[in-house]
Amino acid sequence: MLAQEFIVSCPGKVILHGEHAVVHGKVALAVSLNLRSFLRLRCSKHGKVLLNLPNLGTHLKWEVATLQTLKTAFPVDAGDPKSPSPEQIAALKEFVGVVNGSVDTENLAVMAFLYLYLSIGAKYRVLPSLEIVVWSELPIGAGLGSSAAYNVSIVAALLTACGAVGFPAQADAESARWAAEELHLINTWAFRGEKIIHGNPSGVDNAVGTWGGALRYHAGKITSLERVPELRILLTNTKVPRSTKLLVAGVRDKILKFPDILNPVLTSIDAISQECERLLKEVNRNPSVDCFSVLEELFDINQHHLNVLGVGHPSLDRLCQVTASHGLHSKLTGAGGGGCGITLLRPDVDPNVVEAAKQELKACGYECWETCIGAPGISLHMFSGLKEEVQKVFQRFEKAEH
Amino acid sequence: MLAQEFIVSCPGKVILHGEHAVVHGKVALAVSLNLRSFLRLRCSKHGKVLLNLPNLGTHLKWEVATLQTLKTAFPVDAGDPKSPSPEQIAALKEFVGVVNGSVDTENLAVMAFLYLYLSIGAKYRVLPSLEIVVWSELPIGAGLGSSAAYNVSIVAALLTACGAVGFPAQADAESARWAAEELHLINTWAFRGEKIIHGNPSGVDNAVGTWGGALRYHAGKITSLERVPELRILLTNTKVPRSTKLLVAGVRDKILKFPDILNPVLTSIDAISQECERLLKEVNRNPSVDCFSVLEELFDINQHHLNVLGVGHPSLDRLCQVTASHGLHSKLTGAGGGGCGITLLRPDVDPNVVEAAKQELKACGYECWETCIGAPGISLHMFSGLKEEVQKVFQRFEKAEH
Repeated sequence: MLAQEFIVSCPGKVILHGEHAVVHGKVALAVSLNLRSFLRLRCSKHGKVLLNLPNLGTHLKWEVATLQTLKTAFPVDAGDPKSPSPEQIAALKEFVGVVNGSVDTENLAVMAFLYLYLSIGAKYRVLPSLEIVVWSELPIGAGLGSSAAYNVSIVAALLTACGAVGFPAQADAESARWAAEELHLINTWAFRGEKIIHGNPSGVDNAVGTWGGALRYHAGKITSLERVPELRILLTNTKVPRSTKLLVAGVRDKILKFPDILNPVLTSIDAISQECERLLKEVNRNPSVDCFSVLEELFDINQHHLNVLGVGHPSLDRLCQVTASHGLHSKLTGAGGGGCGITLLRPDVDPNVVEAAKQELKACGYECWETCIGAPGISLHMFSGLKEEVQKVFQRFEKAEH
Repeated sequence: MLAQEFIVSCPGKVILHGEHAVVHGKVALAVSLNLRSFLRLRCSKHGKVLLNLPNLGTHLKWEVATLQTLKTAFPVDAGDPKSPSPEQIAALKEFVGVVNGSVDTENLAVMAFLYLYLSIGAKYRVLPSLEIVVWSELPIGAGLGSSAAYNVSIVAALLTACGAVGFPAQADAESARWAAEELHLINTWAFRGEKIIHGNPSGVDNAVGTWGGALRYHAGKITSLERVPELRILLTNTKVPRSTKLLVAGVRDKILKFPDILNPVLTSIDAISQECERLLKEVNRNPSVDCFSVLEELFDINQHHLNVLGVGHPSLDRLCQVTASHGLHSKLTGAGGGGCGITLLRPDVDPNVVEAAKQELKACGYECWETCIGAPGISLHMFSGLKEEVQKVFQRFEKAEH
C-alpha cells in the first residue's frame, strides 16, 4: 500500500576543507548543510502530474497521457540506472520548449524532474498521478548543493510513491530515514538527475544530500564518515557572482607557474582535511573547548591557503574580518572568488555575539543563516514534525492552490 | 698618512623572504636597506676621545689616559678577532656604570664602542685621539639592523683611522668602498661589536651592512648574492612592539602541534626565497614588468604564509590592506607581530599613488619611509657627496659643538 501524502527533506552541502585541492588529488571533506529542500508529494486520481517549484515561480501541469508520448525515449532498463542519453536530453529539451539552445535554471529543473519521473516510471512500470511541491531554504547557484537537494528529494519521493523503496514511518519519530540499501538506490538515481543539470557532476552533492553527516572525497572516491557531530555555523552568502570554471583554471595556472611554492600548500591543505576528519570523531567523543579552538585554527590556516591559491576575494576578506572582530573564525567554502563563507560557532557561543556578527554581515549586503552542518540526509517527515516556519510555507501554498 | 676627517655610512637591513623559516633550516634573503647610519670621524691631538650619539642623546668624552686603564683587559691578539670575553664585558659594564645589571640601549652602544676602540687599539698598537659622531636614519629596535649599521660604521672608521684598512678615496666618486679583504676584516670586527649588543647574533645584519646588496642565509652560512638591483620600497613601521623571542617560540610550538600542516608551509617559504633569488638576478638583466608582478605575487603569498605561522598582527593586516587599496603589495619583514612591513614600488609607479599610500599609512599612526633595498654596504663619503639633508644634520652638530 502506498502512502497518499508525505513530505521529504534533503540538506544542502558545504565543503569544510579541501576545495580546489581535491581537483589536484587531495582529500576534501564535504558536510551536509541544514538548510533543506522540502518536497510534499500527494498521490491523486485525476490522471495529471503537477510540479510546483515556488522558488523558481514554476507551476506546471501535464496529463499523464501526454507524458506517455515521451516514454518511448525511456525504455525499461533492468540494470542499474545509467547516465541520461543524448537522445533523452534532446527529447526533454524539445518537450520543455528550450529555444536557441539556451537552457535556464527552470528548464533544467523541469527536465531533471521529467527525466526522473519517466525513467523511474519505466523501470517500475507505473506513471502515477501526483502533485509535487518543492520549496527550498537553499539559495540557488551558490555552491550549496541546491540542485542535489532537489534531485535527491524528487527521487526519494518518486521511489517511495512507486513502492521501490519502503515507507520508513516510525510511530514515535517526527522524521524517519530509509535503510542503507534504499539510500544507495536513491543516491544512484539522484546522480542521474544531477547529470541532467550539471553534465559531469562529482557525485559529492547528491551523496551528502542522501547520507547527510560528512563525506571524505578523494581521487573520485566518496566515503561516508561515521558518527559525525552536528556543528553550529553561520553561513554567509556574499552574493558576489563567480565562475567556478575560471577559478579552477586560475589555480591550475598558478600551480604550473610556481610548482615548488604551490604544491606544498596543497599538501598542507590535505593535512588540514585529515586533521579535521580526526577532530570530528574526537568532538563526537569529547566535545571539549580544545577541539573547537583547533577547528577554528584550521579554518584560519585554510583561509590563508585559499588566498594563496588565488581564490580569495575582498568580499570574503571582509567576511573574515567582521567575524574575527567578534572572536569568530571563518573561511570561504566552495569555489571562492566571492560566493559563500562559513563561520564556526562554538556550542557555548554568546547569542548576542552571533546576533551582532549577523547584523554587521547583513550591513555589508550579505545574506546570513544561523544553521548547522552534519545534519541527517534525506528524511521523511510527518507534517506535524516540521518546524513551524516550514508548516506555514506549505499552508500558504495550500491556500494559493485552492 | 692618515686622513684627518672623513664620513662613512652603513645601510640597515630587511628580510625580504624567509624570516622564521630560517630558524627551521630554510633559506632567508636579507637585503640592505638604504636608511643609513652616518659616522663622522675627526682625528685630534687633544688626547681625548669624544663619542656623540645624537639619536640617543649621548655626548661622552674620555681622556685617552683614562681609557688606558681599561686596556689591561684587552691584550694584543695576533690572531683573528675573537668573541668578547666575560671579563671584558664585566670591565666595560663597570666602566660605563651599569647599575643593578640593567643595561639600556645607551650603555650597550657605549660598551660596543669602547670594546671596539680598545680591541682595535690593542691590535694595531695605537689609541688615537678622536671625535666621533654617529647619526642614523634607522629607528632603533625595529629589527632594521640599526646596531649592525652602528658597529660596522665604527669599525670601518676605527680601522681606517688606525691604518689597518686603506683610505679608499677616488678623485671622481662621491663615495668609495673598501676592497674585498678589507670588507672581510671590517665585518669580522663588527660581528664582535654585535656580540656585545645582542649576545648571540646571527651575523646577518653586520654582513648586510658591510657588503650591502642581498645575502642568502641558510643553515648558518651567509653568501653574498652578486649584482643585485636596487629596488624601490616603502618601509613602514607599525610601531607595535613585539618580542622576537616569543614569536619564534610561538612558531616552534605551532609546528610541533601541526607538523603535517606547518612543515609544507616552511617548504613553500623556502621555494619563495629561492624563486626571489632567481628573480633578483633576472630583474638585473631585464627589468621587465613581468618580474615585478612576480615579486609582488611572492610578497602576497609569503604574507599569507607568515599569517599561517602565527606571526601576523592586525596592524600588519591594516598595512597590507591600505597598500593593496592603492594597488601596492606588502609583507611583514622580520619577526612580525607588529614591527615593520615592506611595500614593493615598481620603477614606474605613479608618485601620487605612493604619496596617497604614505599619507594613509601615517594616518594609521605608522611611520613611513620611501627608500630602496639592495643599496651599497659600508661606504666612505666626501662631505660634498652627502645628500643635503645629511649635510645639514652634521652642520647642526657643528654649531651645537662650538
